[in-house]
Amino acid sequence: MEDFSQWFHNILEEAEIIDSRYPIKGMSVWLPKGFKIRKYVLRELERLMDEDHDEVLFPLLIPEAELAKEGIHVKGFEEEVYWVTHGGMKELNEKLAIRPTSETAIYPMFALWIRSHIDLPIKIYQTVNTMRYETKHTRPLIRVREITTFTESHTIHERYDEAKGQVNEGIAIYKQLFDSLAIPYLIHDRPSWDKFPGADYTFAFDTLMKDCKTLQVATVHNLGDTFAKTFDIKYETADGDHKYPYQTCYGLSDRVIASLIAIHGDEKGLVLPPLVAPTQITIIPIIFKDKGDEVLTKANEIKNSLEEAGLRVNIDDRNIRPGKKYYDWELNGIPLRIDLGPRDLENNRMIITRRDTLTKEECSLNEDLVSTLNSYLSKINDDLKEKAWNFMNEHILEINDLDKIKDTVSSGNIGLIKWCGDDDCGKEIEEKTNLDILGVQSQTNGTCINCGKETKYIVSIAKTY
Amino acid sequence: MEDFSQWFHNILEEAEIIDSRYPIKGMSVWLPKGFKIRKYVLRELERLMDEDHDEVLFPLLIPEAELAKEGIHVKGFEEEVYWVTHGGMKELNEKLAIRPTSETAIYPMFALWIRSHIDLPIKIYQTVNTMRYETKHTRPLIRVREITTFTESHTIHERYDEAKGQVNEGIAIYKQLFDSLAIPYLIHDRPSWDKFPGADYTFAFDTLMKDCKTLQVATVHNLGDTFAKTFDIKYETADGDHKYPYQTCYGLSDRVIASLIAIHGDEKGLVLPPLVAPTQITIIPIIFKDKGDEVLTKANEIKNSLEEAGLRVNIDDRNIRPGKKYYDWELNGIPLRIDLGPRDLENNRMIITRRDTLTKEECSLNEDLVSTLNSYLSKINDDLKEKAWNFMNEHILEINDLDKIKDTVSSGNIGLIKWCGDDDCGKEIEEKTNLDILGVQSQTNGTCINCGKETKYIVSIAKTY
Repeated sequence: MEDFSQWFHNILEEAEIIDSRYPIKGMSVWLPKGFKIRKYVLRELERLMDEDHDEVLFPLLIPEAELAKEGIHVKGFEEEVYWVTHGGMKELNEKLAIRPTSETAIYPMFALWIRSHIDLPIKIYQTVNTMRYETKHTRPLIRVREITTFTESHTIHERYDEAKGQVNEGIAIYKQLFDSLAIPYLIHDRPSWDKFPGADYTFAFDTLMKDCKTLQVATVHNLGDTFAKTFDIKYETADGDHKYPYQTCYGLSDRVIASLIAIHGDEKGLVLPPLVAPTQITIIPIIFKDKGDEVLTKANEIKNSLEEAGLRVNIDDRNIRPGKKYYDWELNGIPLRIDLGPRDLENNRMIITRRDTLTKEECSLNEDLVSTLNSYLSKINDDLKEKAWNFMNEHILEINDLDKIKDTVSSGNIGLIKWCGDDDCGKEIEEKTNLDILGVQSQTNGTCINCGKETKYIVSIAKTY
Repeated sequence: MEDFSQWFHNILEEAEIIDSRYPIKGMSVWLPKGFKIRKYVLRELERLMDEDHDEVLFPLLIPEAELAKEGIHVKGFEEEVYWVTHGGMKELNEKLAIRPTSETAIYPMFALWIRSHIDLPIKIYQTVNTMRYETKHTRPLIRVREITTFTESHTIHERYDEAKGQVNEGIAIYKQLFDSLAIPYLIHDRPSWDKFPGADYTFAFDTLMKDCKTLQVATVHNLGDTFAKTFDIKYETADGDHKYPYQTCYGLSDRVIASLIAIHGDEKGLVLPPLVAPTQITIIPIIFKDKGDEVLTKANEIKNSLEEAGLRVNIDDRNIRPGKKYYDWELNGIPLRIDLGPRDLENNRMIITRRDTLTKEECSLNEDLVSTLNSYLSKINDDLKEKAWNFMNEHILEINDLDKIKDTVSSGNIGLIKWCGDDDCGKEIEEKTNLDILGVQSQTNGTCINCGKETKYIVSIAKTY
């Protein structure tokens, strides 16, 4: 892709995903078509979360005193918090922060809710808007000032090993989500300087955009008992002791939608994974004078039987040229197109075209259409996934020479390097290359690419968003 | 109900709907149980809205310059807008308002979207959080500073009569919603001093709480071309003229949930309309030593067949006393309870108890359970509706003597009075009685209760929230 950034900007506009002309920088409007994709993504995420979490909703604003309680945490966010200082004409007694994330909104309530070990664990999540005063260049859905779709989970447990297990559960849920959206990912144990402010450790999901920069699309944090101590959350054990519980939090945002659009889309427009396509199948009736009714009747019959089976189908019977209908079908990324004309009816067939490959196949109308089309959709998801994973994997290269990192990564790759794990040494690598260490990917034996010390860590290094 | 206010506060706490101990006055946390009710209410509202509106999502913040453009509108809200003045440590160049409602966020975008008559009509809606700096006494879900669930619709049309028709469509949608929630309502044409700031006219839905104060639960406004002129929204007609289009907006909030809880609930807890009950049927297995497995097997069989038919069912097999299970069932307002024990199995029956009436009936296990239980649920909704409408109608009294208004209304009624329609005269009535004129209810011939002039208007007067 020659200019990914321009292409991404254009596709958001042409496919009517969002309108970024809103009169505040970094804040955009979700348009009807984009909103529907967002809705289906959230529906799948909620389905996964609801298996073991309760959905809740906390207030937008956080009193300054609460936000400031956790020293490391507030330091991580103080540069980017929006402050509410006035109500009407009146100055407020205490400044209120618009949540940049909700730890400091939720944990004071945990302190009220938790008395005993029988109150634990608690596993909750919410989908909310959050704000960050970005000073860097903003980019719709990727680097924004209003994160409109932040799904954040917060859990609290008796023991540290339960929190560790919950981190794995969070990772497992996100894997399922990304797999169902055909989005490839690398999971990294972030270096200490890139952890969530206040966390013991942070795992992050990174995906690769078509310009070969990585995008962080989800994070999972083990908070240890840091916040429990700060917010004085204590529980009574079965033996009558009073202890601090352990916490995790994990979240993802609009970037999930950004990446599914960016990774699968092509020069003709969107290519949507079937699970989140607002329309999964469009039927285009080819209508001549005489045979119009017959074709439309058959199209409606097909539509009804597919809808009964839970598929999302429309008939594009607009009175416009077929060429324009095909153009719109491509732009909107509808996974499957069915062409149906009088000659098809005579031959008892229809023509199915896949959006991802643009390949056509004939299909007999005698077949079990529900199962035929479902297997097309599932094949599309598999193929999108394979293609996207291949693209990412082809751009991951081992690098053993410090001097080669910059060129190798700059020419469009994620580098795998050996690093000793020492913070100063890691930051030195970042400075020398002007790149970011994403974190530990896997382990082996070898020596650090920078200082030469023995190490077992293989880390990824990349240009990042 | 002796002390409605205390009862309402208690039920929100005991049934775990919301937690109002959040450390900012007027802002509360939706707890898991409350959130589920909210979700089902929204699901029904979205189903109704999606038939003829597109869902969208606009930013939370509005630049001061946009908010201030419409003079009457901003005057209506300036006392209650929360202002964001700082991003991080930096003072912003322009103050940003947290939306009190979204006209001034949406209409600058309408100006960009609308060029020609073929762009019209547009009908959109969004469900968002909005903020109002309430200086009056706040009350959870009823008078709050963060409205967490504001579903606002905005439409724009070529002709004024289309906007008038759309007002009727909005009213029709809300009627359907309130009917399905068994919430009674009176629709009033608000007097000029109580219109939405900037509107031509406002219709409002008022319901009656158990303390006999009315609660405004929805409003529908015809905006005329006021905002189109302010935001310079113009379209080109088929003839090439340039004209201002006409607009409507309508919305409802958390108060819908407040009223369904308040109107149907009783001394034992929630009584939920089946449509929005997170659990519609709970099965309580009575388990003795020998026969436990058999009873549980049957309970699961019943649950599965009901769930297949789309009903929301749980089995309360917690290892606690039945009395506690009944207590929870009542508190949570689950519409139907099924008791099933070994003796019931022997007699091939189950016992069904209705939450609203607490009446029990035997039901043979040979019956078509899906249709039996569905007809119970539909009967419950009908009966809840009838009871609630009766309660309201019994508290509406015609009053023909100015001196009797205050006592009649204060003893727990909505008054119907004749009023000439003159603003000054109407405000005089409000001042003399310390009550609110809700607006025109119907028409007749007669004379104004205050000034004695001939009139055709019958208006409601009440104590309001």
